[in-house]
Amino acid sequence: MSAPTIADGLNCPLPIGEYDTIVLAHGGGGKLTHRLIDGVFKRHFSNPDLDRLHDGAVVDMGSGRIAMTTDGYVVSPIVFPGGTIGELAVNGTVNDLAMCGALPRYLTASFILEEGLPMPELDSVVASMAEAARKAGVAVVTGDTKVVPRGKADRLFITTSGVGVVPPERVIGHERVAPGDAVILSGTIADHGMAIMSVREGLEFESEIRSDTMALNGLVEAMFTAAPDLRFLRDPTRGGVASTLNELAASAKLGIVIDETAVPVDGVVRSACEILGFDPLYVANEGKLLAVTAAKDAEKVVAAMRAHPAGKHAAVIGRITEGHPGVVVLRTAIGGERVVDMISGEQLPRIC
Amino acid sequence: MSAPTIADGLNCPLPIGEYDTIVLAHGGGGKLTHRLIDGVFKRHFSNPDLDRLHDGAVVDMGSGRIAMTTDGYVVSPIVFPGGTIGELAVNGTVNDLAMCGALPRYLTASFILEEGLPMPELDSVVASMAEAARKAGVAVVTGDTKVVPRGKADRLFITTSGVGVVPPERVIGHERVAPGDAVILSGTIADHGMAIMSVREGLEFESEIRSDTMALNGLVEAMFTAAPDLRFLRDPTRGGVASTLNELAASAKLGIVIDETAVPVDGVVRSACEILGFDPLYVANEGKLLAVTAAKDAEKVVAAMRAHPAGKHAAVIGRITEGHPGVVVLRTAIGGERVVDMISGEQLPRIC
Repeated sequence: MSAPTIADGLNCPLPIGEYDTIVLAHGGGGKLTHRLIDGVFKRHFSNPDLDRLHDGAVVDMGSGRIAMTTDGYVVSPIVFPGGTIGELAVNGTVNDLAMCGALPRYLTASFILEEGLPMPELDSVVASMAEAARKAGVAVVTGDTKVVPRGKADRLFITTSGVGVVPPERVIGHERVAPGDAVILSGTIADHGMAIMSVREGLEFESEIRSDTMALNGLVEAMFTAAPDLRFLRDPTRGGVASTLNELAASAKLGIVIDETAVPVDGVVRSACEILGFDPLYVANEGKLLAVTAAKDAEKVVAAMRAHPAGKHAAVIGRITEGHPGVVVLRTAIGGERVVDMISGEQLPRIC
Repeated sequence: MSAPTIADGLNCPLPIGEYDTIVLAHGGGGKLTHRLIDGVFKRHFSNPDLDRLHDGAVVDMGSGRIAMTTDGYVVSPIVFPGGTIGELAVNGTVNDLAMCGALPRYLTASFILEEGLPMPELDSVVASMAEAARKAGVAVVTGDTKVVPRGKADRLFITTSGVGVVPPERVIGHERVAPGDAVILSGTIADHGMAIMSVREGLEFESEIRSDTMALNGLVEAMFTAAPDLRFLRDPTRGGVASTLNELAASAKLGIVIDETAVPVDGVVRSACEILGFDPLYVANEGKLLAVTAAKDAEKVVAAMRAHPAGKHAAVIGRITEGHPGVVVLRTAIGGERVVDMISGEQLPRIC
């Protein structure tokens, strides 16, 4: 059998020859590796840069500063309500770039596959990545595939890296955060983490908890249009809102006060957190962002966010203080105050 | 215990608190993740871009085209004669960029760690990466760490990605390869693959076989200085020289003739190949390159390579032909000819 072409691929869902699972030779660099690349990766990701099939891609970035990021994805299960490991990998990298104030452009994707992975599972994960990339307006321009023997990995790990262009006027960072600034959250928290945990624990609710995995670059652009002077952006993924705020407080050497009643949590997600004993502030999100703006800009930024599909529930949730530097304080619903510390142990293994 | 700083790190080899192995919480995004980042990654890789400790890095790339690349590393064992998985990861990414004609600049590193990995092993791998980055003149500017439960990975996987600047005048690609062009190899083949296989098989020879892992960006610059019109560059890693030449022949739709006697193979490596039944043409290299130049440039390119430590055994090993397009032919030592096909199965699992 000759190696399949992209054209073959478009007519045939799995043009990888006689193999319905991944075998070690798919990682050997020979004919089977080429068939896998053509039949799965190139078929879904096809674009002129990738189609050159070099070990690297040469792209035009204009001039000036670029943002770079990388993230490994090891989530289990690899398909879950609201998303796949592939969508996480694309959206997570797009979001890390957007949080630098960058316009995400080009992604790379590196796959570590376990021998025996069913080919249709790989194919559907890659298809979901390609769709996520299209939605986010980025191209996967180069990649790599390794195969390890059965039992030496868990089905499928993906590392995505990305580059984006940072417009010259944008400077995002904790150095720009000042006392009195507003802390804004783009929507409900803990959806992703509880979607994963509900599947793992076999919990069923009246409505399914779905991951919020989503690219936020469009939302970020709407925010910059409303207030070009955004000071800080970060997506509260692993470790949740509490960890991101603690990192900000520590690096800015300022305090943060959060109003518990202002932090949106979906009712079903809250129930799941209570049943499983999780504090939603520490649970991972994959389609939310935290922003810090000057107090005077807060209202127009929130208005712009609410007008965008990714920011419908955006709200000011707190402010930056000169007092208690390095410490995040929560004003609770019943009027008390408590310190929100950085998490010590492992709350949610393999959540992303 | 407070989180260690870089300064602490410089005085203490493993400032990661009470843990002498990786635990799941090192991947949880909380305090232990921060301690691991400060105590191991930041300590070794320290540079101003990385030290900002964002999920992304913003770097200045000047203007124009950049090259991007990514590679996953799953080699077993992770430390072997002549190198470590970390050196492979840095040098491999540097080399993929150099093969695009780019000046490698910034790297990202994503780690997937197995619970129970001894901390000193991680530390020494990261130290070897940092040293390789210094030698190659690149900076690791951002990274990621995930931890999976025992038995869900094999010790340590690394994915490195990189960007480099492509000088405006350089165009490297199979489209530029023409009949009559010279095929140049930078040195002895099969060293890396046989170093790994000798360890796995417990073979002992009069002299140890060492991996050739090495950054080739300096060698490539020496080649461009000698002959700015280089046409094609590629490092024959997984699948060896045979696979790279087959890929070139297929994409350029031209033939290639190689002279077996011109291909340098170390004597001990050749013995190991014979004992284990490998053809050195198919065995992985991690510090060698194949180049195609106009015939008139070949002599000066080889002279420039031989004057560089990474190209001491450089030689013209063959030429591009109009005949037998897509096929690589070897003229054997005894005067015969045989087709060198692309490998079909898996010769060397987890070689890089």
